[in-house]
Amino acid sequence: MTARLTHLDDTGAAHMVDVGDKSVTQRTAVAEGHVTMLPETLALIRQGLAKKGDVIATARIAGIMAAKRTHELIPLCHPLLLTKVAVEIEADEALPGLRITATARVSGQTGVEMEALTAVSVACLTVYDMAKAVDRGMVIGGIRLLEKSGGKSGPWQAA
Amino acid sequence: MTARLTHLDDTGAAHMVDVGDKSVTQRTAVAEGHVTMLPETLALIRQGLAKKGDVIATARIAGIMAAKRTHELIPLCHPLLLTKVAVEIEADEALPGLRITATARVSGQTGVEMEALTAVSVACLTVYDMAKAVDRGMVIGGIRLLEKSGGKSGPWQAA
Amino acid sequence: MTARLTHLDDTGAAHMVDVGDKSVTQRTAVAEGHVTMLPETLALIRQGLAKKGDVIATARIAGIMAAKRTHELIPLCHPLLLTKVAVEIEADEALPGLRITATARVSGQTGVEMEALTAVSVACLTVYDMAKAVDRGMVIGGIRLLEKSGGKSGPWQAA
Amino acid sequence: MTARLTHLDDTGAAHMVDVGDKSVTQRTAVAEGHVTMLPETLALIRQGLAKKGDVIATARIAGIMAAKRTHELIPLCHPLLLTKVAVEIEADEALPGLRITATARVSGQTGVEMEALTAVSVACLTVYDMAKAVDRGMVIGGIRLLEKSGGKSGPWQAA
Amino acid sequence: MTARLTHLDDTGAAHMVDVGDKSVTQRTAVAEGHVTMLPETLALIRQGLAKKGDVIATARIAGIMAAKRTHELIPLCHPLLLTKVAVEIEADEALPGLRITATARVSGQTGVEMEALTAVSVACLTVYDMAKAVDRGMVIGGIRLLEKSGGKSGPWQAA
Amino acid sequence: MTARLTHLDDTGAAHMVDVGDKSVTQRTAVAEGHVTMLPETLALIRQGLAKKGDVIATARIAGIMAAKRTHELIPLCHPLLLTKVAVEIEADEALPGLRITATARVSGQTGVEMEALTAVSVACLTVYDMAKAVDRGMVIGGIRLLEKSGGKSGPWQAA
Repeated sequence: MTARLTHLDDTGAAHMVDVGDKSVTQRTAVAEGHVTMLPETLALIRQGLAKKGDVIATARIAGIMAAKRTHELIPLCHPLLLTKVAVEIEADEALPGLRITATARVSGQTGVEMEALTAVSVACLTVYDMAKAVDRGMVIGGIRLLEKSGGKSGPWQAA
Repeated sequence: MTARLTHLDDTGAAHMVDVGDKSVTQRTAVAEGHVTMLPETLALIRQGLAKKGDVIATARIAGIMAAKRTHELIPLCHPLLLTKVAVEIEADEALPGLRITATARVSGQTGVEMEALTAVSVACLTVYDMAKAVDRGMVIGGIRLLEKSGGKSGPWQAA
Repeated sequence: MTARLTHLDDTGAAHMVDVGDKSVTQRTAVAEGHVTMLPETLALIRQGLAKKGDVIATARIAGIMAAKRTHELIPLCHPLLLTKVAVEIEADEALPGLRITATARVSGQTGVEMEALTAVSVACLTVYDMAKAVDRGMVIGGIRLLEKSGGKSGPWQAA
Repeated sequence: MTARLTHLDDTGAAHMVDVGDKSVTQRTAVAEGHVTMLPETLALIRQGLAKKGDVIATARIAGIMAAKRTHELIPLCHPLLLTKVAVEIEADEALPGLRITATARVSGQTGVEMEALTAVSVACLTVYDMAKAVDRGMVIGGIRLLEKSGGKSGPWQAA
Repeated sequence: MTARLTHLDDTGAAHMVDVGDKSVTQRTAVAEGHVTMLPETLALIRQGLAKKGDVIATARIAGIMAAKRTHELIPLCHPLLLTKVAVEIEADEALPGLRITATARVSGQTGVEMEALTAVSVACLTVYDMAKAVDRGMVIGGIRLLEKSGGKSGPWQAA
Repeated sequence: MTARLTHLDDTGAAHMVDVGDKSVTQRTAVAEGHVTMLPETLALIRQGLAKKGDVIATARIAGIMAAKRTHELIPLCHPLLLTKVAVEIEADEALPGLRITATARVSGQTGVEMEALTAVSVACLTVYDMAKAVDRGMVIGGIRLLEKSGGKSGPWQAA
């Protein structure tokens, strides 16, 4: 395996890799994750959803806003001019819990995988925060990249 | 079940709950999570670890710095004067991957669960970012509160 | 009139006034403002409100989050441990438009007027942003302090 | 009226609209607002102005810096590479108070109205902050877009 | 020498040291630094100073605002409720250049040395930024702690 | 000397200069600085370096992250899409202390001198923070631009 961790230079020191010579292409990434909770917790959130939908709405906004700050949080991420961020949140009785999907898009020299993953992570954390008073045992999991397109490495889909 | 989602007021609108009447106590929270990856990816990170340790070091710093910005990311979290944040990262061949634990402490009127969970989440995201060039299929999971102490609700431990 | 602008020292240079000797008291501030718009714009927002309420919900979250960043935006404001922020948004057919009220609370050495005013301002800006595609002529106005309590100067109410 | 609130998708959920297919054009926006105050307060500020000008200078800097953070404050705003921000502040005896105008410019895929409006709002808030010790009754108002140019919708001027 | 670098734990990993058991005391720190420049550059700045003073005023504001964000910039710094920040900037023909001094104060469990040093550093950088078009060879130097008081280690003065 | 301080307009008021008409070129800047310390302090850091390298690693990460926030710290800096940031830190027994060099690169309408200088400054501050418990007398100095390329003014090298 000749792969290298591109964030480490020859001496192993961390650096922001130079993307200045990459071409500007349309790049999209979709990520997902979920929050597993007690059935009663999900019911409470859905009732809120039925009335004002604020847990869902707040988590969605938090995810979108966090995507825009990805480069502040992840040390070696490049700043990006995101052209789109969308966060979808759905109740899943089978978990039971909420499933969260985020899509990020940019026309730039580097991909938006981290922006989509950060949106999902912060939306999950916001759900935890808003429901933790009734259920401290919630677990956030399954945060992964679903697909990406654009850039030299081309399209990629999770198995 | 008479529990309420404390972030929603009587009309279901989101608000920052008033903690002004809570007593100032010493509060601690410990959270964990993990990044599952290919065995080769873990080996590459560990080799880096053997030389300069920068993936681990970078993720640790990212987690600590993110904990301090929790109230900026999570809409209804209160600002806090964190007195301690520590992030531990260990390789686990059985996953295979990295296990991340974060401890947050404060002397304040509200708990630090979200700070510990945010530190874990951003440390996980940083690992993903630094190794994604060789392994886009990594999955972040198992992010949960392990224990907390302090405050009116007292100590709590994950089952 | 012997009043002084407390942010200017003897030479007129700006500085953060020393509040280190002020006593820690419970301090509250309430501020208000409004966005005047076309009747059709208000109707569209209210329809959204009837369905998912997202303009209102988004503006409320934006206001709360901005309150926590007041000291980053206003150069000479002190950082504060806000214990509560609440933002209320109501439709007013007479404007026509939305009326926004924010309450901020802290137990600290300096007041929270700026936090309440910042919450109102950013909530108003968010309404503008979300409706500007249909109505660029909206006007934000009437942003003022309604009342404050706590601190050496004691309670104050708008005339 | 067939207009839609572009920030709400078909189900009414908030999202950052996709501007990836918009053309990159030179875009400019000018916004204004004012702070109404007691004549004595204006006199004090102007005296400061005569000496060191620091209230004006501080508010101007605060407005410029806030414009750069618009996308952090307004949930659904896109990040932008502002090429210019200017804030003008003038005393107006007739108000009495200060009139603030901001100009923002970008070469990008979306407009800079929110950046200009945010600059005005935060400059107004800064004036309030610096003079509030002598005049809590100041009112911020008249915050509106004066004109914009560039983009598909073309030039627009306030009536 | 038995001193330890307190930010490194037993295994050498970075962490935010636990200050939860330190007593809350009044703490002050004063730091200084300077920007050396061509005599002509200093003259231009002073002329500006004579008219509107904006280089000096802008650098002062930048330093004050940066002090409030020290814990965001310096990875292992604790968040603090600064009660005072003041930045003084004086022309020094002998350098030639500007001498900058910053004072920070807090009532807290950890010192404010980094806040004072960060204020000086960012004020110096701002001077460089504003004058670099006429003098790229400016040098920032002499950034050091002048004195501190409060805390277990007590008062300290630079030799 | 007909030079002007480009950040000041005709009336001396600060503003972000309009770079909208500048051409987009590849721009690079390299800056340097150093932290002078006691020989024992350097030895302690190097021992840490021999074991886990965390002082160096932490300062490097802090510098890289700060470069991305330059436009938030320096009032009149333009936001930029940095394509590369690298920070090198070397021990120098002759100082004694650490020498820090930062390189920043962008494809944009304005230069990256401030980003490189900010990276150096914050890396130096981080070294100070991590070693201050054993050596409060450290001095940060020699922060200057080494070279820049790109843009209308073309290449520049420190004398």
